[in-house]
Amino acid sequence: MPLIRAWLDSANDPETAFPLNNLALGVFAPQAGAPARCGVALGDRVVDAAALEAAGLLALPGGPLLDRAVWNPVMEAGPAIWAALREQLSALLAEGAPRRDEVAPHLWPMAEATLHMPFRVAEFTDFYAGRHHATNVGTMFRGAENALPPNWLHIPIGYNGRASSVVVSGTPVRRPWGQLKGPDDAAPRFAPSARFDLELEMGAIVGTPSEGPISVAQADEMIFGYVLLNDWSARDIQAWEYQPLGPFQAKATATTISPWIVMRAALEPFRCDTPAREVPLLPYLREPGPMLYDIALEVALAPENGTEAVIARTNYREMYYSAAQQLAHHASAGSPMRSGDLLGSGTISGPTRDSRGSMLEIAWGGKEPLALPDGQERRFLEDGDTVTLRGAAQGDGYRIGFGDCAGQLLPAIDRPDWA
Amino acid sequence: MPLIRAWLDSANDPETAFPLNNLALGVFAPQAGAPARCGVALGDRVVDAAALEAAGLLALPGGPLLDRAVWNPVMEAGPAIWAALREQLSALLAEGAPRRDEVAPHLWPMAEATLHMPFRVAEFTDFYAGRHHATNVGTMFRGAENALPPNWLHIPIGYNGRASSVVVSGTPVRRPWGQLKGPDDAAPRFAPSARFDLELEMGAIVGTPSEGPISVAQADEMIFGYVLLNDWSARDIQAWEYQPLGPFQAKATATTISPWIVMRAALEPFRCDTPAREVPLLPYLREPGPMLYDIALEVALAPENGTEAVIARTNYREMYYSAAQQLAHHASAGSPMRSGDLLGSGTISGPTRDSRGSMLEIAWGGKEPLALPDGQERRFLEDGDTVTLRGAAQGDGYRIGFGDCAGQLLPAIDRPDWA
Repeated sequence: MPLIRAWLDSANDPETAFPLNNLALGVFAPQAGAPARCGVALGDRVVDAAALEAAGLLALPGGPLLDRAVWNPVMEAGPAIWAALREQLSALLAEGAPRRDEVAPHLWPMAEATLHMPFRVAEFTDFYAGRHHATNVGTMFRGAENALPPNWLHIPIGYNGRASSVVVSGTPVRRPWGQLKGPDDAAPRFAPSARFDLELEMGAIVGTPSEGPISVAQADEMIFGYVLLNDWSARDIQAWEYQPLGPFQAKATATTISPWIVMRAALEPFRCDTPAREVPLLPYLREPGPMLYDIALEVALAPENGTEAVIARTNYREMYYSAAQQLAHHASAGSPMRSGDLLGSGTISGPTRDSRGSMLEIAWGGKEPLALPDGQERRFLEDGDTVTLRGAAQGDGYRIGFGDCAGQLLPAIDRPDWA
Repeated sequence: MPLIRAWLDSANDPETAFPLNNLALGVFAPQAGAPARCGVALGDRVVDAAALEAAGLLALPGGPLLDRAVWNPVMEAGPAIWAALREQLSALLAEGAPRRDEVAPHLWPMAEATLHMPFRVAEFTDFYAGRHHATNVGTMFRGAENALPPNWLHIPIGYNGRASSVVVSGTPVRRPWGQLKGPDDAAPRFAPSARFDLELEMGAIVGTPSEGPISVAQADEMIFGYVLLNDWSARDIQAWEYQPLGPFQAKATATTISPWIVMRAALEPFRCDTPAREVPLLPYLREPGPMLYDIALEVALAPENGTEAVIARTNYREMYYSAAQQLAHHASAGSPMRSGDLLGSGTISGPTRDSRGSMLEIAWGGKEPLALPDGQERRFLEDGDTVTLRGAAQGDGYRIGFGDCAGQLLPAIDRPDWA
């Protein structure tokens, strides 16, 4: 599929993340203090979709659906409405659109907009489906012989996370306190995490709900769209707490998502297969077609008052399991899946050091510090560091992007008087 | 505190679970097909609290708060409103109440009422804070020497569960499918769980939200009330999936709660201390006073068309950690806690076989089948079995109860054609 030309020039720039092919969905305030509303990214502008609906230029069956400053009502409305939304937006914004003059007043400069959470997260689940990541972490913790857990090639393993901790790009993240105990310590102590990390992930958003087990094909149809996702992780809290119930407070501080949801429809041209299976999957997890996406990803790190450096480049196609497989597994024991559920892919690492999606892997548990261009070193994140994830699928003369998924690490709070 | 006498005789019966001291909160439909509404249990009646508010007999500041068929608006309104609710209800229902004649038409027979979910669960977390349970399970899985994980005496360990799977008492539970692999199997298979279990727990409900770390004292003040909670568990799914990320699909099928929320205020007379600490807790987890409750608990099992038998009797005071300690730990890494969060205590087992809160423990992993009075044996639950949890605090001439927390296990669905 080629570029779909818009009447807005900046949307036709081959370098923009937001051509008309994308129609990424967010929630924005056009200026400081203005109320938040549903918007659609287009070139260097945000289209006030809520205003278009209020003016009758968008008319979604069952509407109004855009008047609540979250995209959940559209997500809940189902695939026919998702298609109608894209069709109507395209008709209003395409080159030669007859109602251009009515639409134009509802475009706002993206550079001046404040971006909010694009949807209300129902529940958040995080998976562990990147083979290079699981192998790297397993090698560090259990040795190369036992790197992959026995279930890993059979199950897209995951754990439930904390929806209340999901924040939108730009939200500062506070270094957490937690129980820490090194292998040689006699007892644990309560202290700020000293091994605070990022995790480069994609997030899949469930649109249509389910009751009972579903097939992978059904799961794929339920997915509304994707975001970039940074699953901030306190490695020292995790090491002490995670046996036998899994990560808990190590993952509770924050999870940052990109401000823009890229709908599944916009990613269709970029579908690709998961890697060859080392052991056959059980039938309930088999994919009826390509369910991953070719999306180039990068992690950038900027020390406070320093220069940003890209510290990892990889691709979503490195995953061993797709979001559809994860969702099918998630529903297998009967848990209802709900509109607004967010599924983290697991950390996306490639096979080389410069393609690893976490500091834990890049600096190999602190043993191989990462040199930054300005001469600083990093084992884990330092106070003031800003981590930015970026991603884009490269089409024929256009790109599909998500906007920056960024967060700055703030110092821990002072010790509370009761601690 | 003695019995507070009500003008309704059945509320003064020393055996009722619902004297005026209790004022347990639920959501009910007085007859089949009638709309659900907020109600208060009193003796053998349900007081239509929504109707009392609509009639102006209850006037909560900031109201109406009872018109949405869930108790969340009251929970969110905070401790002053919780106290006002109890005070106004007491004034309307106490012996000699001047407005008795206006209130009486709003009482409905509990036996004819249908009970619904009393609140919307924001997020669900399950802990593992019963020492006898952790020791029993650890002994079975890792041997007596390594029964308690190293972190267990230092952290009230827990994991995030799935809020969408929480159901009210009376909801049937469907035996789940899942990936199963015995230690001697060459590969996993997808099949119905053959080791499906119950877990006797208490659930604590967060009323007021928090941002950032909180003390145990603050956590205790945030708790709105308690329910009985059965955390249904598929032991065979769990055994294969839980390393290294913890329980996931094993706990995803359903969690059943009692229909009545007992407010924290009703449990004040029954506060008691946690057991002596084997190792000192870090200051952030220390309790400023007694935070557990003396609540007698029992598990009953009824085969389909068979006779119900009580298979375990224990007490909430057996826990090593209180809900307030769990909540303080939950918030320690910065996760916002929200009104409507539900915290499972972990399985409550006593020191003896007849006080164990799960079939896994009672029948010791299937090695010591439980004999039922009608001659049947149980290793785990069988299709058609109904499990009922009951609990009550015994006061001076009155009891505080939760209503039955019951669910019947239905057979697994047929194998889907894609599985």
